[in-house]
Amino acid sequence: MTDLRARIQHRLDTQTKPLGALGKLETLGLKAGLWLGSERPEITVPSMVVFAADHGIVDAGVSAYPKEVTWQMVMNFVAGGAAINVLCRQHGIDLRVVNAGVDYVFPEGVEVVDACVARGSANILDAPAMTDAQLQQALERGAAVVAERAAAGCNLISFGEMGIGNTSIASLLMHRYLDLPLSECVGAGTGVRGEALARKLAILERAAARHSPRTPHEILQTFGGFEVAMMTGAYLEAWRRKMLIVVDGFIATSALLAAWRMEPSVLEACVFSHCSDEAGHATMLRAMGADPILALDMRLGEGSGAAVAFPIVQSAVSLLREMATFEDAGVSRNDEQS
Amino acid sequence: MTDLRARIQHRLDTQTKPLGALGKLETLGLKAGLWLGSERPEITVPSMVVFAADHGIVDAGVSAYPKEVTWQMVMNFVAGGAAINVLCRQHGIDLRVVNAGVDYVFPEGVEVVDACVARGSANILDAPAMTDAQLQQALERGAAVVAERAAAGCNLISFGEMGIGNTSIASLLMHRYLDLPLSECVGAGTGVRGEALARKLAILERAAARHSPRTPHEILQTFGGFEVAMMTGAYLEAWRRKMLIVVDGFIATSALLAAWRMEPSVLEACVFSHCSDEAGHATMLRAMGADPILALDMRLGEGSGAAVAFPIVQSAVSLLREMATFEDAGVSRNDEQS
Repeated sequence: MTDLRARIQHRLDTQTKPLGALGKLETLGLKAGLWLGSERPEITVPSMVVFAADHGIVDAGVSAYPKEVTWQMVMNFVAGGAAINVLCRQHGIDLRVVNAGVDYVFPEGVEVVDACVARGSANILDAPAMTDAQLQQALERGAAVVAERAAAGCNLISFGEMGIGNTSIASLLMHRYLDLPLSECVGAGTGVRGEALARKLAILERAAARHSPRTPHEILQTFGGFEVAMMTGAYLEAWRRKMLIVVDGFIATSALLAAWRMEPSVLEACVFSHCSDEAGHATMLRAMGADPILALDMRLGEGSGAAVAFPIVQSAVSLLREMATFEDAGVSRNDEQS
Repeated sequence: MTDLRARIQHRLDTQTKPLGALGKLETLGLKAGLWLGSERPEITVPSMVVFAADHGIVDAGVSAYPKEVTWQMVMNFVAGGAAINVLCRQHGIDLRVVNAGVDYVFPEGVEVVDACVARGSANILDAPAMTDAQLQQALERGAAVVAERAAAGCNLISFGEMGIGNTSIASLLMHRYLDLPLSECVGAGTGVRGEALARKLAILERAAARHSPRTPHEILQTFGGFEVAMMTGAYLEAWRRKMLIVVDGFIATSALLAAWRMEPSVLEACVFSHCSDEAGHATMLRAMGADPILALDMRLGEGSGAAVAFPIVQSAVSLLREMATFEDAGVSRNDEQS
């Protein structure tokens, strides 16, 4: 590893540019090269997996959108009309949509990976979001999707989500995993503002007070969300398989918090695509020492932030791989470098 | 125009996402749509033109690199080994390299557009960088390169530069166009630090004191640089032809300062790719009310920042063009929107 680090740094320092002139692209290239195990890394079969599920707590009125938007948006993904479709087409990213627990029966022939644990989580105002067995299923099925992508030759992967109500879930996970007041963890989500936001916070305070989970697994099981838990399993599998992970926004990062608490080394595999406009995301990123690539005030989810940042990760890798050195190109070096 | 703005905004507001959830990508999409004249704009034949030239002031020792690096890097561009080559290949951007005034005779058959005004500018410690006739030639030849690109079907263009010593030129232009103390305009360039930076500032103070240009044209003629002046002509022509311009870093922005002083409306055509690590760039951007897409601590030039940001501009345009509306996709809207 030390040798590889030195070889990558030497390559970066002898390429035809002033020392360090590519800034964060060099940091990103170094990280990717180290993790992928080469001073001339290559990204293969870049993939995006979007996990979708419903949430019992939506019945309490935490979202600006009705619950059926979850399955309707899954159908929009399948039809190719959503933001994530446009972005994956632009960049040649393989897109899979996974039913982790949507409250809907998709018609035969619809291109959705069926990994449904249950038709929506329990309402966490009354009970834990899922049973321990359901959590295990979700973690395993998330890992299985990643294993399939790895078998297809993928070494860079991102995870997105769709689930009306899941910013509430992410806020509760953040609150427990980072031990922060809930008010610092709750934001507008898809468009909850003013009085509605105060109501959302009050509902989540009740849900938080209802439960006392202790371990990382118990916290995830309690506040859960099948798409979030499945994503946690997916992160861990991608890390085990030495895939580079491009982390999306607020909800995707909350699933990473769970993975991080279970396995701190998972961050070795991660680059952070963006800081979203959702209150709390910047705090999560700071807690993990993350330096996101973009800050475009996005707050859409679906993996959209990761997809927008993907070409920049690709640039960092391609520059490291393809740029000529001073010697290759016959260009004179300056005194500092020679 | 007002009608078009309303049509674009309506499209953005009815696409399958929460209102405004794509943040700055929506602002960018709106700007691109307005300028390209469509609520479903399309980018065609995206192009990068890199202007190269030498500078008499380099003899005084303002750069960390020897002057021959200018032509050597041009040969590196032609061979495909520089950062800008890697990035243009990644994104399918057409790359042209223009000899605006390099002190070198390129061999026959080398793929460089010959627009050479003279083999390097005069040393501005002794005389204006160029004559008035040379300035006119540079502006016209820059415009001609853009006209050729427009004829090829290009509607999005970026300009990069290569010229050892040209951060010094850019600093002097910034100093005069923005009426700021030179010390706020001078930075490390390719790697000038400590005592060498103090020496660079002292040399530029002497150059600045030597001349009293008044009009925007006189300022450009005096401190010039053929690649910078040619780029100024290129900006103006791209604006006249309603092409969308993705602006690169410190030197490219100094050429835009000149264009802006000659024709304030040129900014209608511009999106700003990044804020570079070169001291002074952030100040220039603020002066123009620019909101750059990226901040990756890059300071390479060549158009590299614009090329790294290009896919994000493309994303903004593709999302506006291709995303389904709620009605198209049969997705329920929230109360705020319905």
